[in-house]
Parts: sequence; C-alpha cells; structure tokens
Amino acid sequence: MTDIFVKNGFVLTMTGEGVGMIEDGAVAIVGNEIVAVGKTGDLVKEYGEAERVFDAKGKAVLPGFVDAHVHTSNTIKRGMGQDVPEIEWMLKTAAPFTPYTTPEHSIKGTALGVLEEIMSGTTCIGEIGGDMAPVAERVFAPSGVRAQLSNTINEIGPGSRPDARKPYIFFEDVGERKLREAIDLIDTWHGAVGGRITCMFSPHAADMMSGEMLLRVKEEANSRGMMSHIHVAQGGREAIQIDLRFGTTTVRYLDGIGFLDDTIIAAHCHQTTDEEVGILADRGVRYVSCPASIGIIDGITPPLALYLQLGGKSAAIGSDQANGNNSHNMLVEMKVAALLNKTRHRDPTVLPAWKMLRIATIEGAETIGLGDSIGSLEPGKKADLILLNLKVPHMTPVLSRPVRNIAPNIVYSARGDEVETVIIDGKVVMENREILTMDEAKVIEEAQKAAEEVCNAATEDYMNADSHLAKMARRGLL
Amino acid sequence: MTDIFVKNGFVLTMTGEGVGMIEDGAVAIVGNEIVAVGKTGDLVKEYGEAERVFDAKGKAVLPGFVDAHVHTSNTIKRGMGQDVPEIEWMLKTAAPFTPYTTPEHSIKGTALGVLEEIMSGTTCIGEIGGDMAPVAERVFAPSGVRAQLSNTINEIGPGSRPDARKPYIFFEDVGERKLREAIDLIDTWHGAVGGRITCMFSPHAADMMSGEMLLRVKEEANSRGMMSHIHVAQGGREAIQIDLRFGTTTVRYLDGIGFLDDTIIAAHCHQTTDEEVGILADRGVRYVSCPASIGIIDGITPPLALYLQLGGKSAAIGSDQANGNNSHNMLVEMKVAALLNKTRHRDPTVLPAWKMLRIATIEGAETIGLGDSIGSLEPGKKADLILLNLKVPHMTPVLSRPVRNIAPNIVYSARGDEVETVIIDGKVVMENREILTMDEAKVIEEAQKAAEEVCNAATEDYMNADSHLAKMARRGLL
Repeated sequence: MTDIFVKNGFVLTMTGEGVGMIEDGAVAIVGNEIVAVGKTGDLVKEYGEAERVFDAKGKAVLPGFVDAHVHTSNTIKRGMGQDVPEIEWMLKTAAPFTPYTTPEHSIKGTALGVLEEIMSGTTCIGEIGGDMAPVAERVFAPSGVRAQLSNTINEIGPGSRPDARKPYIFFEDVGERKLREAIDLIDTWHGAVGGRITCMFSPHAADMMSGEMLLRVKEEANSRGMMSHIHVAQGGREAIQIDLRFGTTTVRYLDGIGFLDDTIIAAHCHQTTDEEVGILADRGVRYVSCPASIGIIDGITPPLALYLQLGGKSAAIGSDQANGNNSHNMLVEMKVAALLNKTRHRDPTVLPAWKMLRIATIEGAETIGLGDSIGSLEPGKKADLILLNLKVPHMTPVLSRPVRNIAPNIVYSARGDEVETVIIDGKVVMENREILTMDEAKVIEEAQKAAEEVCNAATEDYMNADSHLAKMARRGLL
Repeated sequence: MTDIFVKNGFVLTMTGEGVGMIEDGAVAIVGNEIVAVGKTGDLVKEYGEAERVFDAKGKAVLPGFVDAHVHTSNTIKRGMGQDVPEIEWMLKTAAPFTPYTTPEHSIKGTALGVLEEIMSGTTCIGEIGGDMAPVAERVFAPSGVRAQLSNTINEIGPGSRPDARKPYIFFEDVGERKLREAIDLIDTWHGAVGGRITCMFSPHAADMMSGEMLLRVKEEANSRGMMSHIHVAQGGREAIQIDLRFGTTTVRYLDGIGFLDDTIIAAHCHQTTDEEVGILADRGVRYVSCPASIGIIDGITPPLALYLQLGGKSAAIGSDQANGNNSHNMLVEMKVAALLNKTRHRDPTVLPAWKMLRIATIEGAETIGLGDSIGSLEPGKKADLILLNLKVPHMTPVLSRPVRNIAPNIVYSARGDEVETVIIDGKVVMENREILTMDEAKVIEEAQKAAEEVCNAATEDYMNADSHLAKMARRGLL
C-alpha cells in the first residue's frame, strides 16, 4: 500500500545535471521512502490509491532544503546583533547575554528556529552547538525535522581569553570533556528516530584548540567513518590568534598539519585569499557558505562561487544564526547568495538559479554526507519534500516553454510562505501551512518569554558594553 | 468623526532622525489624512470611537513602502531574464518578446505587479513606461495604490539602432510625439483620483535622445515645478553610445550640458566611477537605486551607500522589473540592498536597518518629490500605512529594551506575508491579506494567459536568439 501520493505537480527531482524537472509529475511514498517518481499518468495506476493523496496542480514539488550550518539556539536573539563593526558583534552584542542564557532558554530558541525552518521549507538542519543532547530529545526528535547534530569541541574555558592580542590559553581537561560529550552524543543519537537524526564531529575552530586536539577529533571522526564540521577563517580575531601562534593563516596552518581532506566540512572561510580558497578546493574540503550571516556580521561575501570555480568538491549554504542573519529562510538565502556572488565577481552568470537550488538541496546534502539518502527525489531516497504554491501573485506566471521560469522564480521571488506542505521522512509535518508536530503559538510565546528574561537580566551588561547598536537605540534611531 | 483608528501597535512614525518608534502607539485617520499619531492612551478618548478600529497589538504600524522605480508591465515576464551575460539580457531575453507584447498584455502585467506590490506592503509606486494613460485608468486608479507615473520620452524609432557600435539614429518626430503624449498624460492624470495619482517627466536616457531634447524635457518639467526621472549610466550599451557621440561618460556628458540638478531623479547609475557618483551628489541629483535588479542583470552593486557617503541629497530604492529582479517586494529588497552595500564597502555598519527603512519610506518619498504628503506617519500627511504581524516565528522575539529589534527584523527577516493590512489614501485596500480593490484570482489568471500568449507567439524568435537561458533550458538544467 502506498502511504502518500503527490500528483500533478511540477516536480523538481534534482537528478541529473540541473533541476531535473518533470511536468505533471508525481511522487509515491511508502513508509519513510520514495518508491517512485515520474509522470502522474505513468504512476497513478500503481500508486494513486494511497492513504494520503496530495494534488500538486499549480505547485512545485521539490526536495526540502538542507540548511547546512545553523545555530538555532540563538533564535531567541533575533535582531540583537547586526549593523555593528565586526569586532563588536561577538564582544558587545552577543557576549553580554551569554552569562544569562540558560540551557532552558537555548531550548526555546532552538524550538523557534526549527519551527521557522520547517515553515520556510527546510527539512534538514545541520546544527552545531555546545550541548546537543537535550535539544535532540526535546526539539529535534519531536519536531519531525531531519537533523545532523554535533557538539562543538574546543579547549576554551574560563580565563582562556584574557587578552585578544595574546595567544588564548587552552585547557586540556576542557577539551577532553567536550570530546567525551561529543562521543556520548554520537553514541546516543547517531541514527536515532529511525535514522532521521545523525551526528558528526565539530572541532570548533583552529584558534580554539591545540593542533593535537584538532587532529585527534579528526581521527575519532574518521575511525567512525564520520566527517568533521569546523569553522574556518571566520574573521579578524581568529586571524590574529593563528598569526600569533603560528605566524601564518588558518588555511595554511590547517593544511600544514595535514588536517584538510574530504572528511572536513569547512564553514565560512571568508577571511581567505583566493589562493587559500584554492588550497581548500585542491584538498577536497567540503564547504558550507553562510552568505547573509557573514554579509551582515562581517560585510564580506564568502567565496562560494570562487570555491566552485576552483574545482571545490561540494558546497552547501547555511543560515547560521538569528543574531546576525536574522532569519532561517533558505528561499531568501538563495537569492542573497546568488546576488552577493554575482556582484563579488561582477558577473551576472555566476550561481544561476538552477545551481543555487542544487546547492540548497542535493549538493548541500552531499556536502554534509547525506547525499545518498536525501537531497533529490528518486526511488530509494528518504521522503523529504515540500509543496510550494505557484498560484500566488509573486510566482505568476508559471511557464514551461519556450522559457522555463519555475526554478528562477523559486530562487529569486519565493520567500517562504509559498511552502504549503512539508513531508519529512515520510511524515506530513506541515499541511496547508499548519505545523502538525509543534504548537506554533506556544513555541512563539515561550521564545518571547525566554528572550525577555535574558534581556532583562543582561540589561546593565549590555548597556555598559555600549555597542553601536546600543548607541542607535539610545539616539532613538531604532 | 474619525474614520479609522489603529491602536496598540509598535508605530514606526519615521519622524525625527530614525524610525521614530512609539510603543503602544495609535494613528487616527479622517478621510484620506492622518489627524493624530501618539500613545494609544493619549488618543483613545478623542479618536477611539472611529468607524473602523484596528487593534495592532503585536503588530508594527509603519508608512507603506515607496517603490520608486518600477516597470510593472514586465511582470508577465517574471523569470524570463536572469543569469545571462549583461549583453544578452536586453537583446536575447527581452527583445524577442517585445514585438508580440500588446498593450493589453502589458496591462495584465501591470495589474499583476501592482497586486504583488500592495500585498508586500508597497503603497506608492513610481512607474515608468511607454504609455501610462491606459494603465492609469485600468489599473492604478481602481487598485487604490498611490502612483507617480511618467511616460518615457526618447527619439528612438524603427531603424534607430542598426548597429550597437555606431551612434543611434534619432528621430525628432518620435521625440516630439512622445513629449506631447507625456504632457497629455500630465494634463489628464496629474493630481487625479483625489491627488492619489501624480505625474512627472521621464526622459528615457542620455543615449536615447539628443542633448537638445533632454534639456527641453527638463525645461518642460521645471516650468511646471516638476522633476525628471531618467535612467543614468545603466550599462555597457549606453556607455558605448555616449563615448561614440561625445567621447566621455554619461555623468560627465549630462553635467557638461547643465542637466544635473536637484530636479533630476537619476535611476541606476551603476556604470560610474566613484568620482562620477560624487558629481551626482554635488549637483544635488536625487538617486533611485535598484540593487536586486542591477545585481541580477549586471552583476553590479549600484552605489547607494557611496552616494550617501558623498553627501547625496536624497535616495530611494526600486524593484525595477520582474524579468530581472524577479519580484516587486520591498521587504526583501531592503535586505538585499543593505547586504550588497555592506559587502561592496566591506563594512557591516553600512546602511543599517533604520536607514534602510527610511530609504524605503520617508526618504524614498522625498526623493520622488512626495515627502510633504507621504512617507511618515504624522498629522497632515496622507494616510498610507501598513500593519505588519510580528507574532510569527520569523519575527519573534519582539523586544524593546535594552535591545530594540523590531526595525532590524523588519529589514532582515520580514519577507512580505507579515503585511496583514494596507491602508492607502485613507482606504483599506488589503485586510487580513485579502485584497479588496482587485480580484486576486482573476489578475493571476489573466497574467498567466497573457504570458502564455506572448511566449507562444515569440517561441521561434526566442529560440533563435539562443541566450544562455535558452541554452540552460535546452540542456535540461531548468
């Protein structure tokens, strides 16, 4: 018996070289797997009598988006850090709130972020954070979203960073503890809820730990056939540290110690020369680019198109965090990514719509090691797909010949609310914009309360830090 | 008797230097005018018994957006021109369809574009096109949107452009006819429907007409106390023409003939040196920047922040057209504008959220000469305002102290569907996302049909032109 049959849609399978469009297409699902994809007419006889039938006439059907680098716990801090000098973002807009943010607050933030992701079409989240076990249990598992979780490992403890102009002091015991917790997370959650949750390792960044620990984490990952997701060359503070310790740059340092290969997922990489991006590409390193976040926080376009031009193996994009981006919305992220890269290269042909859609789906999945199970619509893959309404003013007209405008309009005009129905791992998670796995109003209310608690507690510290943002508020500009 | 009372909202008045926020604010409207703005508690006694009361609790209330440079007739061509080399955009993606696009098709496109604009919070459209009288009557007047219309004037006729490497041939009679039609439009429509529709002059571009005609149009405008809205330095073809004819650049040519002053609204200006942007700023020229459109079509970030840094008088943004942008959505446009300019200057403090909101409202209105009547919420101004729902996942949390995150989240996270209610000229044009002045389904259906007719008729020409876009379709990428 077929569980779900989606019919009559413009199906963007993401197979082949491009978007792999099937007009009047259908997708049949049994359990959590896709069993058939093709023309509706060819499939309706065998699969048409499904438990649930979705008529996708006038809709696009495509793999859900892979948001490959995300810190959803920060979603309660949406709009709390932007438009400030790069040096202030961490120190003056984020740090004042950190001591007052409890694990419970972070869980409320994660719930809000996951809700926002699903409602704008993301079906797989690559989440990185300090302690993923509680959010795995309380948010990721019940939400129905696919997630790839990793605990950050570093050797930073209280007193590690007395002075940004001196090398950080590393604590081996902190590193040991975080590595152990990361392995615990993997032991408990990798492959959980029917394989919907997977895990990997996440050495924090080259400036946050010794070279020995970096390599040890990589070995732990490789011994399990896993990858390591690391922040690379993410700004001025890191550059100063690596220069102080090794007299070189992050990429050259990591290359020198033999860290860079195709089991490494490097996030950001915006504090790089073109030659360094070439080194990453040559070593087979996978790349997650966070264009809107880094554009807002650093005023830099990360080298997504450049990495691909230099032969990079596989790239994804990520929405990063809400104090910075300020949204987790892959549809807007695709437009921003394409535009920032077009203007960086002064070339409008850079990152065309079909390529952006692939990066946000199948290539994103491949980048984080899930390309065999998700990212495209084909038999044997997990059933992660979204139905996107094209019968709205901003997606009209819908044309197939001679112009094919559906993919370009998804990338350049869709913005989230066209996503009507979301199916993840064969389960209907959102239907007609009603989220079925979470209590939307409650998630909003609890996140609001958590944010207010953190803000109230941190008021004095925040005002004392006196960021540009605090000054704007004081001047009455905001 | 008060006609409309909006209460309990976060009112962004756009008065003063920044967003002019009033918490728990209210706006009272009589006829088409705002009569009072203040704290709800201060106004409720005098105005609370209005004909219509909108409770804006949990919502932002702000002036509707001014989309200052738009060609809505192209909205039926959404997604028909992007990701191609700059030289192809006009010649190979737009031109093949032009001979088959009837005035009736264009009217359907305009209706679609206006619908999209209103539904994403735009209340004033600066529309430029070949023949505005029919769309004024059939779309702009009945839609309820505020519009500032101008007919483009040029001296281009059949046979004017036999060869891009030779100077275009100008036809004086064409110029005379278009100037006459532009004046007719003004005589008929300037100040029509209670002043909701206004007009100005629009000399097309420096490469499309003689210097004599440029100056004559400007004089006609000035003699009526009107401004002239002109495309300036909009790309390679224009640069070649101006160089062929005058051996210089557009800005220097226009400056040399005394064209540049504060009655000129210059659109685009992306084919410019920093020094030339300085000349525009020095002469008091007003600037409309179309970041997403020019980013997609030309791969260039237009110099919005630079113009302001160099002391430019007044700037607006515009969504331009749907074969290129591919949307008319000022909320996404603000995020794109800020990000492109931050990365152009490698400075995250460039164009902060409060400034982007001002550019999209009060400063946009000032730029196109409507600053006395719209763009802010204060007594005596026309009642053009929108209610934006903040109780959605992607706008949560809503914070006033110590962080004020409403303006940043409107700019960086809102994307259109939060706009619940739109009031223009004192009339409720959209309520709870239901558009009251247009038949949404019919507009979509008719635009779809118009687009299909144009596509069908132009198929052979389009395939023969063989743009990169046509090649992508042929390769199955789209």
